[in-house]
Amino acid sequence: MSKFTPNAGFSRVVWYSAPDNSTVLTKVIGTISAEGGNVATLEVVERDRDMIVRELIFDAASEDQAVAIVKRIADIEGVEILTDEDRTFLVHEGGKLSVERRYPLRDKADLSMAYTPGVARVCRAVHMDPELGFRYTCKRNTVAVVTDGTAVLGLGDIGPLAGLPVMEGKALLFKTFGNVDAFPICLDTQDTEEIIETVKRIAPGFGGINLEDISAPRCFEIEKRLVAELDIPVFHDDQHGTAIVTLAALYNALKIVDKKIEDIRVVMNGAGAAGISCSWLLQSAGVRDITLCDSRGIVSRDRTDLNNAKRGFAVEESGGLAEACVGRDLFIGVSVPEVLTVEMVQTMADKPVVFAMSNPIPEIQPELIQDIAAVVATGRSDYPNQINNVLAFPGIFRGALDCRATAITPAMHRGAARAIADLIPEDELDPSFIIPAVFDERVASAVAEAVMLAAREDGVRRS
Amino acid sequence: MSKFTPNAGFSRVVWYSAPDNSTVLTKVIGTISAEGGNVATLEVVERDRDMIVRELIFDAASEDQAVAIVKRIADIEGVEILTDEDRTFLVHEGGKLSVERRYPLRDKADLSMAYTPGVARVCRAVHMDPELGFRYTCKRNTVAVVTDGTAVLGLGDIGPLAGLPVMEGKALLFKTFGNVDAFPICLDTQDTEEIIETVKRIAPGFGGINLEDISAPRCFEIEKRLVAELDIPVFHDDQHGTAIVTLAALYNALKIVDKKIEDIRVVMNGAGAAGISCSWLLQSAGVRDITLCDSRGIVSRDRTDLNNAKRGFAVEESGGLAEACVGRDLFIGVSVPEVLTVEMVQTMADKPVVFAMSNPIPEIQPELIQDIAAVVATGRSDYPNQINNVLAFPGIFRGALDCRATAITPAMHRGAARAIADLIPEDELDPSFIIPAVFDERVASAVAEAVMLAAREDGVRRS
Repeated sequence: MSKFTPNAGFSRVVWYSAPDNSTVLTKVIGTISAEGGNVATLEVVERDRDMIVRELIFDAASEDQAVAIVKRIADIEGVEILTDEDRTFLVHEGGKLSVERRYPLRDKADLSMAYTPGVARVCRAVHMDPELGFRYTCKRNTVAVVTDGTAVLGLGDIGPLAGLPVMEGKALLFKTFGNVDAFPICLDTQDTEEIIETVKRIAPGFGGINLEDISAPRCFEIEKRLVAELDIPVFHDDQHGTAIVTLAALYNALKIVDKKIEDIRVVMNGAGAAGISCSWLLQSAGVRDITLCDSRGIVSRDRTDLNNAKRGFAVEESGGLAEACVGRDLFIGVSVPEVLTVEMVQTMADKPVVFAMSNPIPEIQPELIQDIAAVVATGRSDYPNQINNVLAFPGIFRGALDCRATAITPAMHRGAARAIADLIPEDELDPSFIIPAVFDERVASAVAEAVMLAAREDGVRRS
Repeated sequence: MSKFTPNAGFSRVVWYSAPDNSTVLTKVIGTISAEGGNVATLEVVERDRDMIVRELIFDAASEDQAVAIVKRIADIEGVEILTDEDRTFLVHEGGKLSVERRYPLRDKADLSMAYTPGVARVCRAVHMDPELGFRYTCKRNTVAVVTDGTAVLGLGDIGPLAGLPVMEGKALLFKTFGNVDAFPICLDTQDTEEIIETVKRIAPGFGGINLEDISAPRCFEIEKRLVAELDIPVFHDDQHGTAIVTLAALYNALKIVDKKIEDIRVVMNGAGAAGISCSWLLQSAGVRDITLCDSRGIVSRDRTDLNNAKRGFAVEESGGLAEACVGRDLFIGVSVPEVLTVEMVQTMADKPVVFAMSNPIPEIQPELIQDIAAVVATGRSDYPNQINNVLAFPGIFRGALDCRATAITPAMHRGAARAIADLIPEDELDPSFIIPAVFDERVASAVAEAVMLAAREDGVRRS
């Protein structure tokens, strides 16, 4: 059986004709259910004397399952499949973004203001005072979503064009949750220096840079250099977005287990972009004891295969994940499916907290530890406590753009995490509700406020 | 007096209060008129017993004139200026573009199709077959408007950020006239090789590249190399857009003066991007006799200051513009204001044609030669026969994107020119109507059709 629950990511749109009676409909619905799918919607397209044409949309847990279900429906007596489409591909048809006018061009008067000759005076004004670029151009609200396509979702190095659907999706999230105009830039190079220089060269028209799906350890150097060399905010979401929302979840989980952040011992499984950044942010928030693990086990001093980022976390201890878990208060997984076992969780400290964020299949299925762990969070929307970057990045950039920040600092990260955590009042806090829902409309503005406040304290705001 | 006629590019929005009687209103209107402005709109904002607040929008011929008019209005007895704003700057406030969703994100189901987990399958499909990038991503309809800010309008080298208002304006034109999603990319480098490599690196996400306001002669090399090294259309509008619309105007002017394109002798004044490209396109359309002039006069073989592009047109003859005009059938000016004199036009061949396209002030004021020239065209919207790039580039890219062209060839340029010219039926053709109006809705689709046809003949279409 699939590890997934049925969801719209694997839904099909089927038009079928059949005799207009309840027997056939019952069989269709029954088949979907028996195969593990979920009916989403059912509509009548056309009906004549004896026959009916229906549009059926159902969710499945995988593409194979969806295809199998359609095949079984086709086998039902009297049913003829007219069309069968993958709904996800329909959504992506033609791309998911457009560039639109904030100002209409209806006649010559409009043209002479938005374009020549009027525009020349605006250009001259910006040339005399570049700060006016934030007022009179789309730099004000525009963020580049930059990738080289090397670490796209769980797909790995699929290249810049194949990564574009994700970058467009990210831009949709930016707009929906933060009202930020985000535009995808897919780079045809994987060279660290070339990526840095290309982003610097295209930077004048953007108010911020969001790095996306660039593999570790190159992403650390690329971000560090761009932060140092550009005067607009640069943010690598795979690092900091994950770290911020994880810290938000941790703040609330600690209230439930009644432990102090300075006292907890953490095992961090995964030493890529997210794992390293999570470790940094947790340290800056007060965590003193972190054991980092990668696919070869504990990142220990005696290992010779460590990059600079990992070496900063190397410990005396050595061994595998099982050894690393013993006595720990918190497991954070940003790694691969099903590497954490029930036995390992049993060796953790009292009231263990497990954040198993490998997506879509977590490090351990939450059901298996529901009686052992005090709090469990995952990256999935169909379990409680979804740790999802979208709680952070739209508000982060909303705040950074609104105060024309020159950078996004660790204090801004921590402020964002605290703002997300504080949206859940103490009396609603519960092991299955430590983090707001993705569609909670308060999140982005709360994050933006906190980010602007921290930006002021850190002296990185322009306005 | 200003060389301009009043236009919206220099309009002001003034709110003033005054006693509610017709004497004051008459004085206000009279003042504007006496100073050379034009009232655009007049509205009542608020009115009480004796006083009225009006919103007045008027056009002027220059910023100085606009300011002077407001000052004169303020001097009228009883008038108090409440607010006075430059309407052009209001139009540009906050930028002129936004990035919008073609697909709404309302709930978890939308998220799971447009983003994870559904998007992973779309990425995989594009990775397996990159041609699907034209179907499932915004590459399909997206063009980068790329500048280095070195030759922005008549302002020269004002840098990438100060050039952004023009690039946004260009994107507005792309959308309005061609339904193309265009996005500005302003480059922080003026190095030919760096521009070429940067555009190549960001190319995967774009369906085409429109180079804009890059100074000559670098623009020739940049375009040539990008055309050779990219598999999407690359078009330098300052070169080819102008050339195409000029050729369209020429096709129709030749009908009026009843001359053959092979027989005419042309003087081309201006040897920058537009002048060189115009000369190339005219040659490819059959013109055999072109005398190119730059600011130092005729581009002659004995000169030692010529770049490669100019050298290709060098002639035995030498001298200034006056010598170059003698006996010529067509003057094309893509140069600077007021360099062509009435005397020079008088020395031209019988039924001379003058395209004086320096903008906003032409090489010669059309009024001065209305009795001498058979046909006059300019770049201005307030004279007949406006030669405006916007007649070409939206349709060019519309056609190129729709057939997934790998390049835009000279045959496509000529096809576009012919399509623009042919929109004016023989019986409507007239010395003051040789080219369609900018807002003629037939233009872009006619150009797109012609471009696709020529692309097929040249074997550069993918679909």
